[in-house]
Amino acid sequence: MTVYQATASAPVNIACIKYWGKRDTKLILPTNSSLSVTLDQDHLRSTTTSRADPAFTEDRLWLNGKVDEIKEGGRLATCIREMKRLRKEEVEDKNPNEPKLSTYKVHICSYNNFPTAAGLASSASGFAALVSSLAHLYQLPVSPSTLSLISRQGSGSACRSLFGGFVAWQMGSDPSGSDSLAIQIAPQSHWPDMHALICVVSDDKKGTSSTSGMQRTVETSALLQHRINNVVPQRMKDIEKAILEKDFDTFARITMADSNQFHAVALDTEPPIFYMNDVSRAIVAVVVEYNRISVEAGKGYKAAYTYDAGPNAVIYAPERNMKEIIELIVSYFPQEGGSFKDVFGLFGSGQLVAKVPSGFNENVAKRFGVGAVKGLIHTRVGDGPRKLGEEEALLNAEGFPKNLT
Amino acid sequence: MTVYQATASAPVNIACIKYWGKRDTKLILPTNSSLSVTLDQDHLRSTTTSRADPAFTEDRLWLNGKVDEIKEGGRLATCIREMKRLRKEEVEDKNPNEPKLSTYKVHICSYNNFPTAAGLASSASGFAALVSSLAHLYQLPVSPSTLSLISRQGSGSACRSLFGGFVAWQMGSDPSGSDSLAIQIAPQSHWPDMHALICVVSDDKKGTSSTSGMQRTVETSALLQHRINNVVPQRMKDIEKAILEKDFDTFARITMADSNQFHAVALDTEPPIFYMNDVSRAIVAVVVEYNRISVEAGKGYKAAYTYDAGPNAVIYAPERNMKEIIELIVSYFPQEGGSFKDVFGLFGSGQLVAKVPSGFNENVAKRFGVGAVKGLIHTRVGDGPRKLGEEEALLNAEGFPKNLT
Repeated sequence: MTVYQATASAPVNIACIKYWGKRDTKLILPTNSSLSVTLDQDHLRSTTTSRADPAFTEDRLWLNGKVDEIKEGGRLATCIREMKRLRKEEVEDKNPNEPKLSTYKVHICSYNNFPTAAGLASSASGFAALVSSLAHLYQLPVSPSTLSLISRQGSGSACRSLFGGFVAWQMGSDPSGSDSLAIQIAPQSHWPDMHALICVVSDDKKGTSSTSGMQRTVETSALLQHRINNVVPQRMKDIEKAILEKDFDTFARITMADSNQFHAVALDTEPPIFYMNDVSRAIVAVVVEYNRISVEAGKGYKAAYTYDAGPNAVIYAPERNMKEIIELIVSYFPQEGGSFKDVFGLFGSGQLVAKVPSGFNENVAKRFGVGAVKGLIHTRVGDGPRKLGEEEALLNAEGFPKNLT
Repeated sequence: MTVYQATASAPVNIACIKYWGKRDTKLILPTNSSLSVTLDQDHLRSTTTSRADPAFTEDRLWLNGKVDEIKEGGRLATCIREMKRLRKEEVEDKNPNEPKLSTYKVHICSYNNFPTAAGLASSASGFAALVSSLAHLYQLPVSPSTLSLISRQGSGSACRSLFGGFVAWQMGSDPSGSDSLAIQIAPQSHWPDMHALICVVSDDKKGTSSTSGMQRTVETSALLQHRINNVVPQRMKDIEKAILEKDFDTFARITMADSNQFHAVALDTEPPIFYMNDVSRAIVAVVVEYNRISVEAGKGYKAAYTYDAGPNAVIYAPERNMKEIIELIVSYFPQEGGSFKDVFGLFGSGQLVAKVPSGFNENVAKRFGVGAVKGLIHTRVGDGPRKLGEEEALLNAEGFPKNLT
């Protein structure tokens, strides 16, 4: 008997032009276009195995070893339904010899290689991996942009994880959502020098969920419409050009400005939404000062911070600056000895030592204790979803999670 | 020999519609109108004595017991020069018998009754007291609005301290600044129930000065122009109406929204400006939750926070809510025992005890240690500048500061 099963992994992406606000909450159609950098799956990824089997009695999903309920009418159910529809329309209806997988129930098992405690949104990589594994299972002859239409309905920013490199989510205009999809601006290979340092910031309080927060901003912010209509369209053009020209200065300025503006409209919400805390603010101050000494020396920007809906910083920088940046960050936010994983071998066999560049005004921030920044993850621009071999499948022979049986 | 000397005190004001941005930095002409509540001089005030004497060899000023240099072309010099000009034009030119005080040098001694460490801007009350004392010294037959034109050139928001009660600073349109002045929307007696609790928040770092910060926002924020042109004009109308109708709900919503938006445009600046810290954010969360239980019970808003260019919160509320608010604030931000000055006798001879209202979700903020909020000052809407008697003069018989000789 044939086993219909496929496994795929998908990357995390971190936006430079932020998505904040839906014009259609059911279809997840955004109020503005956005743009992100896909991060390397070698470091951060979601992996998903999907299997279709006529013997299965219901669609089931396990996430990180635990059952995740597929609620009727919910986002998971929507993505699975849409993928089955594509299977039927694009494969089975066109070739009656193909097995009717669209009529089988599926078992789906998904795993994130980064701890939830890292505070990184896993919904983007998770829905991208889900859709990718089902696309392989169903052998769909469709493009990543078409798949992005479906992953978008799982989690908006998931559409951007269908591509590697530099990815735009075009907001589109059709009420059906048919043109609200991801396109690749440039592949990973265009600018492989783009590295990223994720600073995982400890937080006291549970922040506002982005789903509810962004709609409160849409409803109450007096500034959001101006951002949507008058700011983002130009920034999208400018940052695309900067990426194509590998112009880090412009990339950095726009990325930081758009992070600031996203948090500004969150703050302009009633009641206000704060995602950045004192540690986040201190990281901003350190990056601003780091850039200042370089810009004043005529050498341009060296790093760009960006913050999603939480206190974590992601610092984009050319690879050559990363050693200096890590030394600088640990000067203000010391790490437990030996906890930093030097995956790029920046420090050779030597020790990571806190160090501040010459000319740096050390008073721009106070020095925090160990734990204020709980961890540092050094990664870089990466590729899009990968089809994985049978040996990486997360389901066992019976179609249940391997680690649960 | 006649001594030409006068003493006046002037109040602090805290804006509900924020001033942020100048269209003329020399004349201090703002990019938008603003509106404030004048606080009670019984609690917070600047006192200034001015004396004109033909024997004095130069204009001199002492602030809190220390010499403050009057820089040529600086803001102090401008205010003194303009007051002398008014003396000449409005008094001496019209009545040749009047002594030519405009030709005499002045000695000015000023004192704030609140510590600099309180983190309260003293420039508004300080320039208002300076201008008021000179107006009495020169016996100027001019209105507070005319005086506000001059104090505005010392420190923009000082123009609003020329009146008690509820005060608008009309931005005006004339390039000369002749119509950029303060008017009283309603006197203290109109809404004496308006109380205020100042929460003095400890801060690690020196914030960006408002003078330089606001111009950076004017130059770099993509959102500020929208605020200026499309948001503030309507808010000014709406909050004036709310004040005239003593509609606290509307007053509270606009006040909080405008505080949020001011900090939003500061954050939308390159590089971003942050004035609120984690303690400020926690106070917001506590006030939001306090209002939520009341609004959901159909009883409307009970308090309104507002933040100037620093981490301190000012909470406006009707007097009847103040006991509950203070008990709530000290639950999250404990005070040194006995440090709270209960000037309104809210707690009688009893102890101030931390207490959270019924139905309040205590998880909206973490509880901080003693010192996170360094002090609480309970005050209320107050009157405008006061002429004080000779017994309160700060200059001695020789025209020098009393406490220095």
